[in-house]
Amino acid sequence: MADKKEITKKSINISEWYNDVVIKAQLADYGPVKGTMIIRPYGFAIWENVQKILDSMFKEYGVQNAYFPLFIPMSFLQREKAHVEGFSPELAVVTIGGGEKLQEPVVVRPTSETIMYEAYAKWIQSWRDLPVLINQWNNVVRWEKRTYLFLRTSEFLWQEGHTAHATEGEAIQMQEKALEWYKTTYEDYYAMPVLTGMKSAKEKFAGAKTTYTVEALMPDGKALQACTSHNLGQNFSKAFDISFQNKEGHNDFVWQTSWGFSTRSLGGLFLTHGDDQGLVLPPKIAPTKVVIIPIFGTEEEKVLAYAKEIHAAITHIPSVFAGKVTVLGEDWKTMGWKINEAELQGIPLRITVGPKEIENKTITIKTRIEIQGQSQFEVPLTDVADKVENLLVQLQKQLYENAKKFLDENTHIVDAYEEFKKIMQTKKGFLKAFWCEDPECEAKIKEETKATTRCLEFNSKEENGVCIYCGKPAKHRWVFAQAY
Amino acid sequence: MADKKEITKKSINISEWYNDVVIKAQLADYGPVKGTMIIRPYGFAIWENVQKILDSMFKEYGVQNAYFPLFIPMSFLQREKAHVEGFSPELAVVTIGGGEKLQEPVVVRPTSETIMYEAYAKWIQSWRDLPVLINQWNNVVRWEKRTYLFLRTSEFLWQEGHTAHATEGEAIQMQEKALEWYKTTYEDYYAMPVLTGMKSAKEKFAGAKTTYTVEALMPDGKALQACTSHNLGQNFSKAFDISFQNKEGHNDFVWQTSWGFSTRSLGGLFLTHGDDQGLVLPPKIAPTKVVIIPIFGTEEEKVLAYAKEIHAAITHIPSVFAGKVTVLGEDWKTMGWKINEAELQGIPLRITVGPKEIENKTITIKTRIEIQGQSQFEVPLTDVADKVENLLVQLQKQLYENAKKFLDENTHIVDAYEEFKKIMQTKKGFLKAFWCEDPECEAKIKEETKATTRCLEFNSKEENGVCIYCGKPAKHRWVFAQAY
Repeated sequence: MADKKEITKKSINISEWYNDVVIKAQLADYGPVKGTMIIRPYGFAIWENVQKILDSMFKEYGVQNAYFPLFIPMSFLQREKAHVEGFSPELAVVTIGGGEKLQEPVVVRPTSETIMYEAYAKWIQSWRDLPVLINQWNNVVRWEKRTYLFLRTSEFLWQEGHTAHATEGEAIQMQEKALEWYKTTYEDYYAMPVLTGMKSAKEKFAGAKTTYTVEALMPDGKALQACTSHNLGQNFSKAFDISFQNKEGHNDFVWQTSWGFSTRSLGGLFLTHGDDQGLVLPPKIAPTKVVIIPIFGTEEEKVLAYAKEIHAAITHIPSVFAGKVTVLGEDWKTMGWKINEAELQGIPLRITVGPKEIENKTITIKTRIEIQGQSQFEVPLTDVADKVENLLVQLQKQLYENAKKFLDENTHIVDAYEEFKKIMQTKKGFLKAFWCEDPECEAKIKEETKATTRCLEFNSKEENGVCIYCGKPAKHRWVFAQAY
Repeated sequence: MADKKEITKKSINISEWYNDVVIKAQLADYGPVKGTMIIRPYGFAIWENVQKILDSMFKEYGVQNAYFPLFIPMSFLQREKAHVEGFSPELAVVTIGGGEKLQEPVVVRPTSETIMYEAYAKWIQSWRDLPVLINQWNNVVRWEKRTYLFLRTSEFLWQEGHTAHATEGEAIQMQEKALEWYKTTYEDYYAMPVLTGMKSAKEKFAGAKTTYTVEALMPDGKALQACTSHNLGQNFSKAFDISFQNKEGHNDFVWQTSWGFSTRSLGGLFLTHGDDQGLVLPPKIAPTKVVIIPIFGTEEEKVLAYAKEIHAAITHIPSVFAGKVTVLGEDWKTMGWKINEAELQGIPLRITVGPKEIENKTITIKTRIEIQGQSQFEVPLTDVADKVENLLVQLQKQLYENAKKFLDENTHIVDAYEEFKKIMQTKKGFLKAFWCEDPECEAKIKEETKATTRCLEFNSKEENGVCIYCGKPAKHRWVFAQAY
């Protein structure tokens, strides 16, 4: 693992800082094919934690996991017009299989609506077969020429939930539920405050009736579309003939949703909390919560024994914070390097143990970031478990509060287009401005400021305003931002 | 779910029986592209259980999960000569990406040695970086024209472990460890007795120095190569230049292993234990261990309350058998159909509750297969938890014993080639015969009997024998069989 000195400062060049941290903290590496990435064990351990969180929420609700093929016949995509138009430019196409040219080329799935719904049409006959609540954890491919690790890659990992319901009401309930899971994951686990709302007609998913979104604000003032949940209406069920006999004995098409959460989210996580020392991980999803570093003076054995005592005292911290507690004891000669490494990796707590601590029967805990202005805590040995647990909770909270403060400071109510343009040229951020909902104004604003509509927030009130671009009547403030 | 009557009898046509059971028990379905399959929620829940078992063994040993790209440059495969020769005929090739013809076509991974080892070469510099113990759970593609659900599909799911070590001794230890995990999974969880041993030079993995294998015997007398573990020697480290400075300061190439366990194993599981009623699942990997079916007479409410009492009493069965316990109470009008369904799905225990049980304060437990000749057990309500737990253990054991009896009865020591041929034409099975280890005899035997060498068992003694084919001196009995 490389020295922290090689990391560009976050405040100087955030994208260089980001690449440095992702590579040097061994979260990921570049793959040999353009646009691809390798998720290294440390990065993957974080993703596994995220998977556990979401998967248990899904299962408790009755969503079942399954697995559908990677390869989709090109003709399937073409059945839903908006869908194929949206995805065509990004497809990877297999034309040779088993040494022979294929009669019909197959597409590597960019998303699985079409292949799943062809099967749903076969499986669903009656209202008794509904709802169908299926999720899959898999890889998808949307061709990219330039890699931005985690944030933009040709192949990424995600979960995609695909449900079918007897009524649109149930489908919307599902769409909302998925967004609620996602918001909880961001706010309670990633320690990232987010906005939630509905996408504009232009920005919604290709083939959806409505798209709900979670939007996060990155430290450079750009928005990250953090994940989405779609009400597909009957668009796909009509294209794929997924019909059922309802309770009254009539035939109807099912109402559908799809929703996804991907490894892209990790990019947002790293960008949000990291600092000049490297990564900063919220305790709830950090693979290693605490690292114990013995400072050997002349009394090596005594120090190591004390370190192990501390280790034993904190390995049983409640399950919400379950995770590896590591004692770094073997490579004491490179201890300074190990401290650097722990900081670079964003490990929430670092406990150092030396002769002074042994004599006083205390421990010294260093938090990865300051908690209300303090980052070093000395406590009696007897209190170690309580204090560690307490600091992990506080650290999780502090990270959220820091990010919330940034979000609030960089969210602006704007009524004049000149001001809108000026903010977009400088500090950026989320701008809340009236928009008449005419796609032409949306396109013009994008052209002139690079800002797109991010969402119409769920809590947005209906008001009497005028469009920031054309001056015509507008009912709602929409959230605008430049986006990743 | 269809009626059991539509299932072909296992004794009449095992492959039709197998397809019927896999489709009707909703384990899997055919995908639209030739050779592909959909793993439905019930089948996937079994795979998730297998993943948990193996993954916890890997992690305890220090193996870390990661994720490498799906796409491999064609040129990578060509670096190891045997490897590319072995896999070329099975490749799926992407030639179009993002609407453009690719300059270098990319291969959809058939296995990940080449793409992983290119990265290992970058990551490994010194003995301090070793061992590298990385696993990934992913999808791989080896083109097939005909689908045999689970057993032969173009795309399948698996784990592939890839390790690098400072010495060959450590690599061999790893190779053995992986095979031990696999054997434990088959014997203790799948309830399948297996043979373990080494593959012949002809049958080993393309690019390996040695391949260890787990071989199972299917009810039709054919062998299933159940999973494999390879000592790659320095074949790949030389081709990919994975060198390191050893403790003495000299440069050396690393020693490597790779090992994989796939969804193919589920096909073996279903074939081994199933019967004319459908699937039979070993309790340890059954997603649902117990189903409670209330038999409503006139006292519907009382019966349902009693069923729920039983349910509450058994939901806390020890974790080794943790799993869903289902009460089927709502669709009582179709109760006979629900019993059929429970049998078809291979649920280990079925508890029926009716007025008679309530009056006697007893429960009636039906086991999916007979345990020492008995399949129905009446016990006092107070004993329900103990009895359920005990029957699950016994059922697991009985399944293993039944399969072991079949294996023993169908393993033959053979010394005459005429007998060898006759057995291969009739009942088949594992044949243990002396072979001189000349690939020519191996090829001739295959040509004439369809039997291949499955392995040289680890416990095989050195003897003075003569080759069953050519009569020349032979030191070991090898295991032969026709294979899936």
